Amino acid sequence: MTKISKLQDELVYLAKLGSALGVLSWDQEVNLPPKALAFRGDVNSLLAAEIHSRFTNPKFVKLAQTLNRPDNLKQLTADQQVIVREIWRDVDRAQKLPVKFVEDFTKLTTAAFAAWSEARKKSDFKIFKPYLKKIIQMCQQEAKYVGYKKSPYDALLDVFEPDMTAEKLDALFGPLAKDLAVLVTRVNKKTVPSLPKFKYDITKQHVLNQRVAKDLGYDLGAGRIDESPHPFTIDIHPTDVRITTRYSETDFWVSLGSVIHEVGHALYEQGLPVKGFGTPLGSSVSLGVHESQSRIWENFVGRSQAFVDYLYPLLVKHFGKLPYKSDQLYKWLNRVQPSLIRVEADEVTYNLHIIVRYELERALLENQIKVDDLPMQWNRKMKDYLSVKVPDDAHGVLQDIHWSHGTFGYFPTYSLGNLYAAQLFNKINNDIPKLDDKFRGGNFRPFLKWLRVNIHQQGRRYHAGELIKKSTGKSLNSIHLIDHLNSKVSS
Amino acid sequence: MTKISKLQDELVYLAKLGSALGVLSWDQEVNLPPKALAFRGDVNSLLAAEIHSRFTNPKFVKLAQTLNRPDNLKQLTADQQVIVREIWRDVDRAQKLPVKFVEDFTKLTTAAFAAWSEARKKSDFKIFKPYLKKIIQMCQQEAKYVGYKKSPYDALLDVFEPDMTAEKLDALFGPLAKDLAVLVTRVNKKTVPSLPKFKYDITKQHVLNQRVAKDLGYDLGAGRIDESPHPFTIDIHPTDVRITTRYSETDFWVSLGSVIHEVGHALYEQGLPVKGFGTPLGSSVSLGVHESQSRIWENFVGRSQAFVDYLYPLLVKHFGKLPYKSDQLYKWLNRVQPSLIRVEADEVTYNLHIIVRYELERALLENQIKVDDLPMQWNRKMKDYLSVKVPDDAHGVLQDIHWSHGTFGYFPTYSLGNLYAAQLFNKINNDIPKLDDKFRGGNFRPFLKWLRVNIHQQGRRYHAGELIKKSTGKSLNSIHLIDHLNSKVSS
Repeated sequence: MTKISKLQDELVYLAKLGSALGVLSWDQEVNLPPKALAFRGDVNSLLAAEIHSRFTNPKFVKLAQTLNRPDNLKQLTADQQVIVREIWRDVDRAQKLPVKFVEDFTKLTTAAFAAWSEARKKSDFKIFKPYLKKIIQMCQQEAKYVGYKKSPYDALLDVFEPDMTAEKLDALFGPLAKDLAVLVTRVNKKTVPSLPKFKYDITKQHVLNQRVAKDLGYDLGAGRIDESPHPFTIDIHPTDVRITTRYSETDFWVSLGSVIHEVGHALYEQGLPVKGFGTPLGSSVSLGVHESQSRIWENFVGRSQAFVDYLYPLLVKHFGKLPYKSDQLYKWLNRVQPSLIRVEADEVTYNLHIIVRYELERALLENQIKVDDLPMQWNRKMKDYLSVKVPDDAHGVLQDIHWSHGTFGYFPTYSLGNLYAAQLFNKINNDIPKLDDKFRGGNFRPFLKWLRVNIHQQGRRYHAGELIKKSTGKSLNSIHLIDHLNSKVSS
Repeated sequence: MTKISKLQDELVYLAKLGSALGVLSWDQEVNLPPKALAFRGDVNSLLAAEIHSRFTNPKFVKLAQTLNRPDNLKQLTADQQVIVREIWRDVDRAQKLPVKFVEDFTKLTTAAFAAWSEARKKSDFKIFKPYLKKIIQMCQQEAKYVGYKKSPYDALLDVFEPDMTAEKLDALFGPLAKDLAVLVTRVNKKTVPSLPKFKYDITKQHVLNQRVAKDLGYDLGAGRIDESPHPFTIDIHPTDVRITTRYSETDFWVSLGSVIHEVGHALYEQGLPVKGFGTPLGSSVSLGVHESQSRIWENFVGRSQAFVDYLYPLLVKHFGKLPYKSDQLYKWLNRVQPSLIRVEADEVTYNLHIIVRYELERALLENQIKVDDLPMQWNRKMKDYLSVKVPDDAHGVLQDIHWSHGTFGYFPTYSLGNLYAAQLFNKINNDIPKLDDKFRGGNFRPFLKWLRVNIHQQGRRYHAGELIKKSTGKSLNSIHLIDHLNSKVSS
């Protein structure tokens, strides 16, 4: 058996274990009897440990390392080279972290999560502070283990968005922040559109969601839509990609908006090459590119005038006569209003929430601000960028779970997703004639086909920067997103 | 670390892998998107192979063997001795079968299952015959590998019902068959009770099922009720025991009867000692004892007059006024009518179906009949025991899937379950005063408590024969079942 086959076989084995873990995780969110939570945690840990242990097994590391030597690499096909290059990237990083460090970090974040939960409940940053200090120290240590050129932030960012750096982010987020700050001042002078109250039957919402998901191209024969408190997509295999949503009786968009967002993620996973399952050829590029797929469907398709024209008759068909017209719905879906909470933010101000977090994370890691000053810094930035006054820590610095998990370098991928989505949408709109008419008629196939060919079927062959350049003909820039968001405030 | 701790740790590890596989299997029956079937098969195989490989790993076999040596055994506590004795039983059997033999058997039964499916569809035994011949040869070979005293049948039976033998079965099934044959002649002279047609809303059936399951003692905080084509119970952990049912709009008992049956299985699993999870101390005794738990609830509780008195007002509450009275329902639930298909058989004639299969399986394994003659032998026995005429192989010898899976020695556990159930019920009825009144009032707690203490909490401490003797004070006999079934025909 050749070395490359050995590597591929082990990757597929690991991916199958990962799929088992995926089913268990999905089951935990959707079906788990409450008393089974502790035991399920044990089983999940066991599988996760098994996967980690095989992935960092010295023999496996050696195999990947050997294959990655230039003399061996050149004997492989182009596809095999992609596999080796990308896997070595992951393995190399994993093996640079001492086992003890990884264990200590897990222990720390378990305790930190509990502290954060309490801190948020009591709206008291002091409770979380000592843990956050240690987490930042350990993140800095991780960056040292992994290595970086300019900023320790780069080493963390790289896990979520390979090849992205703080320097590149500055070049993207700088103009974006400036232009959005101007938009916000314009927004504050407007009244916020609203919709008359209406009751949307939840069973009918489910039927509508299935219909729309199917129209968008989601294959329900290789997926399903369930309910969970936090909507998510889980990729078990391209033939088994499931999404969840949550329901509100008074706002159908709570469920349908989530469905469109998650369908975007799911279409990516259903569209990955099955043959490459388990290897980088069958994997998604990065979190940013993944997010671009959910955002392009949610915001660029789902909130467009053409989509509202397609949707409105479906709403009437499912829920009966509505107390508002189609154009009111369009305005309401595209309303903009600066607010305190990221997950409730509109499409325009959302990116400012991300930029606030990015700047603070980076400053913390580079020791430019102190954890003690974080709430003050947070509140100041929210005022500067969003013109909102933070009343307490729960509605401010403590609102997101991520830092308690030790996740630094992750938030930027949300806005990167928006940037990628805007640039992709602009290109698709130029490539496909009369895209609006197609959407209006419920025909999303040409749009999906473009994404399939240019993004989904590429697997992890290119990093995000290359992929965007290859597919749109231009390097990533913030112009398209700013144009798009501008139109939301002008309309 | 002591040897016994090592053994226990590995058992718990294996049990956790088994739980993961359990969730995957449940998910496959209840949720799986159709296109994901092939991939799921791969993942399940991988986990099953991993479990088998660890269980038959020479180091593990050696560990169990060493602990089972008399000089080592006597240094262990009584509980530890149970663990070692029972595990050695399983390991010893597994390691007696050559790897090649196990692989060949899997291949054979995969092909045999396909042949059986086609044969049943075309109602043509010839298609299945060559496979069945090979399966019987391999079962005989398996018996040789494992070893036996009197009949090769004993070696196969022992997997499902430890310590049971063909000789003991003869002593139980002989009188049972004779008495049931007499009952059948009496039944044939009676008219079969029926119920007026009525439509039972399926959502309401689900609500009723949950209510009854809860009343019987099923903990919905450690389980759930879903829908699947073939109802089943899956034991993931005592905190996660799930059941399924299927629905008919015109017959509420299709779903409720299944729920009561599966709740019987589930109460056993929810009642196993959590501390013993993964070891014989936290495991069920045998398939026969498991079946006794489902049958005691389904037939001895669920079809009793007292239960009907409890149920009838609930039916009216959930479905509205019914076109029949409580006593009609009781008679209908207890109707008896000889028929061709085992899975549709009533409580009385069911055991004759089992006895037909037992006698034929045993004769095949002992080379007393030929596979070529099997359909003829089948049809003759069905005529002799049940007075029914088999029209074709699909309604005769080909009706059950089990032989195509290579499963011989399994069918008897169904009737053993009935025998255990009858003897246990008789004892409980003597032990608990006014059991009927309690059932009538919806109070099933004292009944469940008796089972918890005498059966569930015992784990695999005793084999079925000992357990029944310990809990009822008498060796297993067929008197109680015959009395019970007699009452069904007389009433």
